[in-house]
Amino acid sequence: MDYQDIFASACKEIQSKTSHGKVADYIPELAKVNPEQFGVHLETVTNSGFSFGDASTPFSIQSIAKVFSLSLAYELVGERIWKRVGVEPSGTSFNSIVQLEHDDGIPRNPMLNAGALVISDILITQLDNPKKEFLEFVRLISGNASIDYSSRIASSEKEMSYVNNALINVMKYFNNINNDIDEVMDFYFHLCSIEMDCEVLSKSFLFLANKGKLTTTGEKIINPSKAKRINAIMQLCGFYDQAGDFSFKIGLPGKSGVGGGIAAVLPGEYTIAVWSPRLNKQGNSVRGIDFLEQFTTMTKHSIF
Amino acid sequence: MDYQDIFASACKEIQSKTSHGKVADYIPELAKVNPEQFGVHLETVTNSGFSFGDASTPFSIQSIAKVFSLSLAYELVGERIWKRVGVEPSGTSFNSIVQLEHDDGIPRNPMLNAGALVISDILITQLDNPKKEFLEFVRLISGNASIDYSSRIASSEKEMSYVNNALINVMKYFNNINNDIDEVMDFYFHLCSIEMDCEVLSKSFLFLANKGKLTTTGEKIINPSKAKRINAIMQLCGFYDQAGDFSFKIGLPGKSGVGGGIAAVLPGEYTIAVWSPRLNKQGNSVRGIDFLEQFTTMTKHSIF
Amino acid sequence: MDYQDIFASACKEIQSKTSHGKVADYIPELAKVNPEQFGVHLETVTNSGFSFGDASTPFSIQSIAKVFSLSLAYELVGERIWKRVGVEPSGTSFNSIVQLEHDDGIPRNPMLNAGALVISDILITQLDNPKKEFLEFVRLISGNASIDYSSRIASSEKEMSYVNNALINVMKYFNNINNDIDEVMDFYFHLCSIEMDCEVLSKSFLFLANKGKLTTTGEKIINPSKAKRINAIMQLCGFYDQAGDFSFKIGLPGKSGVGGGIAAVLPGEYTIAVWSPRLNKQGNSVRGIDFLEQFTTMTKHSIF
Amino acid sequence: MDYQDIFASACKEIQSKTSHGKVADYIPELAKVNPEQFGVHLETVTNSGFSFGDASTPFSIQSIAKVFSLSLAYELVGERIWKRVGVEPSGTSFNSIVQLEHDDGIPRNPMLNAGALVISDILITQLDNPKKEFLEFVRLISGNASIDYSSRIASSEKEMSYVNNALINVMKYFNNINNDIDEVMDFYFHLCSIEMDCEVLSKSFLFLANKGKLTTTGEKIINPSKAKRINAIMQLCGFYDQAGDFSFKIGLPGKSGVGGGIAAVLPGEYTIAVWSPRLNKQGNSVRGIDFLEQFTTMTKHSIF
Repeated sequence: MDYQDIFASACKEIQSKTSHGKVADYIPELAKVNPEQFGVHLETVTNSGFSFGDASTPFSIQSIAKVFSLSLAYELVGERIWKRVGVEPSGTSFNSIVQLEHDDGIPRNPMLNAGALVISDILITQLDNPKKEFLEFVRLISGNASIDYSSRIASSEKEMSYVNNALINVMKYFNNINNDIDEVMDFYFHLCSIEMDCEVLSKSFLFLANKGKLTTTGEKIINPSKAKRINAIMQLCGFYDQAGDFSFKIGLPGKSGVGGGIAAVLPGEYTIAVWSPRLNKQGNSVRGIDFLEQFTTMTKHSIF
Repeated sequence: MDYQDIFASACKEIQSKTSHGKVADYIPELAKVNPEQFGVHLETVTNSGFSFGDASTPFSIQSIAKVFSLSLAYELVGERIWKRVGVEPSGTSFNSIVQLEHDDGIPRNPMLNAGALVISDILITQLDNPKKEFLEFVRLISGNASIDYSSRIASSEKEMSYVNNALINVMKYFNNINNDIDEVMDFYFHLCSIEMDCEVLSKSFLFLANKGKLTTTGEKIINPSKAKRINAIMQLCGFYDQAGDFSFKIGLPGKSGVGGGIAAVLPGEYTIAVWSPRLNKQGNSVRGIDFLEQFTTMTKHSIF
Repeated sequence: MDYQDIFASACKEIQSKTSHGKVADYIPELAKVNPEQFGVHLETVTNSGFSFGDASTPFSIQSIAKVFSLSLAYELVGERIWKRVGVEPSGTSFNSIVQLEHDDGIPRNPMLNAGALVISDILITQLDNPKKEFLEFVRLISGNASIDYSSRIASSEKEMSYVNNALINVMKYFNNINNDIDEVMDFYFHLCSIEMDCEVLSKSFLFLANKGKLTTTGEKIINPSKAKRINAIMQLCGFYDQAGDFSFKIGLPGKSGVGGGIAAVLPGEYTIAVWSPRLNKQGNSVRGIDFLEQFTTMTKHSIF
Repeated sequence: MDYQDIFASACKEIQSKTSHGKVADYIPELAKVNPEQFGVHLETVTNSGFSFGDASTPFSIQSIAKVFSLSLAYELVGERIWKRVGVEPSGTSFNSIVQLEHDDGIPRNPMLNAGALVISDILITQLDNPKKEFLEFVRLISGNASIDYSSRIASSEKEMSYVNNALINVMKYFNNINNDIDEVMDFYFHLCSIEMDCEVLSKSFLFLANKGKLTTTGEKIINPSKAKRINAIMQLCGFYDQAGDFSFKIGLPGKSGVGGGIAAVLPGEYTIAVWSPRLNKQGNSVRGIDFLEQFTTMTKHSIF
């Protein structure tokens, strides 16, 4: 299918609408961003790309990075990873403590904050130099050696991390955190602080559209079965308590972050990254979701 | 792709394994079935079919019928149906009352019992002769004029319907049931009592693999966007609190019933119906899930 | 202590204030009452009584009758009654289904609707002619042979009983209801339909202030230990999710009803019944609570 | 009433029974205590005292100290204290996070860990030298200048404080903690580390049986209305999810600690402190509750 025209037409239509929603303000650094920005990049598995708007402006990818940490941890640890974190959607908001308490410290899925903290704990155990090696992994899959943590954002998160502190303490109580709490939190904050622009972000997800291999070099990142399973997890758990709605309207596996970014995957075809800072009450980008709904409706192409 | 060999090989492998799990016993009639039965039928959108085992033995499709009632109601009422029932996965078991109470009588999704009761209420309002017209709809999509309700099963359900009674009373309290409680319950019990064999069941789902049209006559049942959305709902909500696990292992939208049946869809390709009465603790067929995992792993083909 | 002056002064003070709150409207019959009425009666264990205002106007005692059914069932069945209903406060509203589902069908306490339904089920099993014999018991403890059910109120409740239907169905599912659901509901609605005025109501509670004996004839209704325990249950569970606040402000065991009545007990001293139809959001009489707070503050006398 | 004979007889009866239950082991220091110890002391408002068994052996009073911190904070702050903590029983275990999340960071009552953390936060704001001044308060009400914190116990708690860390972080998120988390936790751990023997403990509670005044000097600690209200809170919330059962069997306001101590109050008459380290599953002393049930049954005297 030729995406270029549909892509351009969907971009213009969304940009012409008045935007609504609120920029994330619980992290001081995120609140400073210009809320009117809007960028998109689509990259096919055959390495064609289309950009629109602020597609080259770096932003804080926040929770989208949970897909990268899951991919690396899953490849390192294999199926026994699921003893420590589930694969079921939660039906509650991203930072809910309630279900965690009922499930004896096993988070429902790795896309929730609690689950991403467990994945962070696993990576700290597995890696000699966790922050450095994780960054190398992200640079590898994105094909971009300049990707880095933002220490400014990481520090900003640390100041407002009461709910994450609560979550990790509950899991430590249930013996589902093996490393020092402060070390896990530090890794997690760095992970969430990574900055990318839409083009780099869409390229970073391409291995998930390509059965686990880089489209550029053919290098295997994870095996096809794991790529399929990560897509399945994104489909059911990637948008917190809006997962059903996103799946219903857009029909692609994907992941959002409170920085306003969304990355989505049409397996075998393309990845798409969209960014616009205003969020709806579930914490997902309003314009990002509007654009993806428009685009997939026009292409008549989804996983369903 | 040529499914025939993989199909045959997956069937044999599953049948050779010892089966475990328990036949549903909360409904007296269901408890009487021979637990060792196992049947599968795959039907492609080009109307090729492959059968194995007890694929021609009728069984009680139970909750799988919720997909049929949702399809008809959605076509009749359109998008305003979502004011009365959500599209989010629930994270709880199929008959949980807890979330219903929190969400002011709006069920989380139409695959939960509560949601299917609301859909039944909508059909009663929309149809002049609800039970008759619904049956005609099921006969149309299955291409089989002999499909019928089992009054034996419907009566058997009625005797043990305490939780469903509780659910419908809570929703009536919240004004989300418009018709008489007994009439809605009677319709719901009939709906769940429909009997089909695997071949007929897989053919009944083909319109969902074919953008809403019958593959035989080309007749439009629902529009493509609605077919996509029903698949999305099955993907996230079709297996109760095993939805994530099913999506993760198998990667197809589908729906299970406590009679031991499962119907699944690979959009654009095929539908598959599998039946084996022994259930796991989430109420899904043990052998059905094992078979579908085996089959999709061998075909290396899913929506992801 | 001489209560007369304090009583009169507290009555006047409350009556002089503007009343607020809303009359119960979920039962059509209750909504018809004049909301400005206010009556009080205090009766000592030495059979002195003081009345004020509308103390001789009969009203629907509603949930206050749960104390009578508990007293009779407890006397008939003894301590094994606590296998079917707990004695812990619930922390939730009177008709919550949530906790019931978590506790496997055992209601938290007999003052919740669910608990009173279990007590009704026990009485139906224990008594040959449940409605007749229960009425005789109430006539005995009140010393008033004209007390009766209001079939008007009982029918009115029946029409709006969705939540109670939900509760009893959940308990039936968990095997904690032995008799026919309709029979238990009919008994429960009759129980709640009893009408009394403040004077009769306060006299009906006197055996709980007098170690289980009637103050008039000395006849034993229940033994002292059971009277103490019923008072303890009222203290912790008599005002739904306002139990702590009532205990804190007033410091007497008591029970409220959505008809606007409250009966309270100072063991060894007196009982007091107050009635005023406007309710707060927890379903308790606004003026009733204001009066009792005023009165116990002035007497400086409570159980604490 | 002459308590001496009943007291002696109840003590002997309890001591003759085989003890069961488990010593608290979540804090290493508590696990080291000899589990067979048993002590009781009763002190009347006229300053007569009776001791039995290990009544002069100091033990860790743990959560019983929450009554002291509440008393001091309530006296300092007055009724506006209830904007930050409720007075309702919780229906859940002492360290549940669930209700806290639902109630927007306002703990249900000051006897739960979360509530005691808020009270600690208030004292830190109110006092110039919180730990020193609180200790002076406890020395004053106990009439014992040698009472002190155990730094050994306080450090031991700190190591295992994951759930308390979770609770305080949730409340900080909801803006219900004003001071530094570490400072509040340090104060709370010291508070819980106080050691007393039964005699001193019972004397420390006497002002609550004496309308807020010391029985020795007549000095006012808190006013009568506040004393009544603290008793009411203990009655409804002093024994976590066994509050109803304790009230039902014993009928006295009181407070337990995981060190195996219980202090109880019969207003106008006496206080009683009992200690035995083995706990039931709700975290209350098995022998302590058995003794108090025996004793109040024999005296036929409770608040009810």
